[in-house]
Amino acid sequence: MKAIVTVTLKRGVLDPQGQAVAGGLKSLGFDEVRGVRVGKHIEVELGGDGAQARERVTEMCKKLLANPVIEDFSVRLEGEGA
Amino acid sequence: MKAIVTVTLKRGVLDPQGQAVAGGLKSLGFDEVRGVRVGKHIEVELGGDGAQARERVTEMCKKLLANPVIEDFSVRLEGEGA
Repeated sequence: MKAIVTVTLKRGVLDPQGQAVAGGLKSLGFDEVRGVRVGKHIEVELGGDGAQARERVTEMCKKLLANPVIEDFSVRLEGEGA
Repeated sequence: MKAIVTVTLKRGVLDPQGQAVAGGLKSLGFDEVRGVRVGKHIEVELGGDGAQARERVTEMCKKLLANPVIEDFSVRLEGEGA
């Protein structure tokens, strides 16, 4: 089964990459852009029967995939709604 | 309004970052991990009334946010389903 992890910077944390992208879009003529935030989209393919998959993937986020000090994360198992 | 852009590597394109993450997870004891793919999650805040927002954001993807040669992208407007 597949788990989709989305990692985003917490509100209030500066995002220089997002600012650079916003600047690039504006210079291309996309004047309606008010701001951009860039995060990570991580797809984790898991073996096994998927029991406790959500708990395991949450543990992966806390230990490696996200930095809980400055980042939020969400876990979605494939087949679930957003 | 806000648009969520997800950029992922096309199937078949090597993902060294994903391989490194998968190796890290396995070395932490997550033996059920079969593979990891890493992409980008981009939140674009738009001014205006949102008319043609989807077309504009798709254009942003083609021009700057994604590399259509090696990456796929999807656009979701906030309030829509996944």
